[in-house]
Amino acid sequence: MSIIRPVITPLDRLTQLLGKLPGLGPRSARRVVLYLLKRRETLLLPLIDALQETAAAMQFCSSCGNLDVTDPCQICTDPRRDRSRICVVEDVADLWAIERSHAFRGLYHVLGGTLSALDGVRPDDLRIAALVERTGDGMVQEVILALNATVDGQTTAHYVTERISRDSVQISRLAHGLPVGGQLDYLDDGTLTAAMLSRRQA
Amino acid sequence: MSIIRPVITPLDRLTQLLGKLPGLGPRSARRVVLYLLKRRETLLLPLIDALQETAAAMQFCSSCGNLDVTDPCQICTDPRRDRSRICVVEDVADLWAIERSHAFRGLYHVLGGTLSALDGVRPDDLRIAALVERTGDGMVQEVILALNATVDGQTTAHYVTERISRDSVQISRLAHGLPVGGQLDYLDDGTLTAAMLSRRQA
Repeated sequence: MSIIRPVITPLDRLTQLLGKLPGLGPRSARRVVLYLLKRRETLLLPLIDALQETAAAMQFCSSCGNLDVTDPCQICTDPRRDRSRICVVEDVADLWAIERSHAFRGLYHVLGGTLSALDGVRPDDLRIAALVERTGDGMVQEVILALNATVDGQTTAHYVTERISRDSVQISRLAHGLPVGGQLDYLDDGTLTAAMLSRRQA
Repeated sequence: MSIIRPVITPLDRLTQLLGKLPGLGPRSARRVVLYLLKRRETLLLPLIDALQETAAAMQFCSSCGNLDVTDPCQICTDPRRDRSRICVVEDVADLWAIERSHAFRGLYHVLGGTLSALDGVRPDDLRIAALVERTGDGMVQEVILALNATVDGQTTAHYVTERISRDSVQISRLAHGLPVGGQLDYLDDGTLTAAMLSRRQA
């Protein structure tokens, strides 16, 4: 008995592409496709519009590496931001996370990853030279290294510190400690030790 | 201090729409947006193409309710399919699942859901009348109810059985039992009981 294999439909192609997105696999991609097709007017067509608009409008900021509709981005051109402080992050997602916290009103610098011997990421693959240049303009007084507390993140922090260290520029890092709302007995030993060592007077 | 709220960007709109997809929330939607923007040529633009193509080409089959590039669909028009058997499913996803198993070579009928007193889904909301009409054409010898083994699915199966029961049409259901590759001690009692009652001679 010969089984008739259908031709590759637009649906197969779409399912395959959606399955490449983070968080979606082949099964959930199929579910998404069906969900979209059942909501053609309310979701599928608006989503196509939004994707097209995003593809056309969004670009990387040539100064800090942020993603925005303008280059330089709205943060870099905002006159109300403190230009003497630069917060160094691995990824645009980290920049957005810090922006959502409203805890920082200076400028950013997105490295685009971390140094990694394993993955072959070398200093030239990151935006480190551009950071060195920015921090040497005489305006910058503080560089905050907001890198992830992973081995690669901390290695990168060390390397960046060496590259940009000048008498005129203060280099700082995010504090380690108990997450707000976190419970002591769910915390790992390293964080607990760091929180204890950096304890403050109440 | 006044906090400057940025204007709604294409990115916000896209993130909001992606967050409505099953399996994605606000956080994972943001991650998907970044992932797409970093892979503009290899993923973002092809995805827009595939979505447009799908939106333009895919339609529901007016006979069985399947989604395909043609109406009636390729299954309904395939001369090699057994037209005397109709497999009734709740959703297009179930139809696709059965097609992937290659275990059925007849036609399908998608109900579009299950009866549900709680959600206010009544017989007229499902494609039951169309099924009654199809099964009454004299060609159909067997109707296989491949509905989910949920309360709503089984209620719907009972109702459909009553509506289409004729002397000339045999009505069957999928067997309950041990999933292939399944382990006894992880199985719920209901399935185990069903598997025991439907046991076969080895």
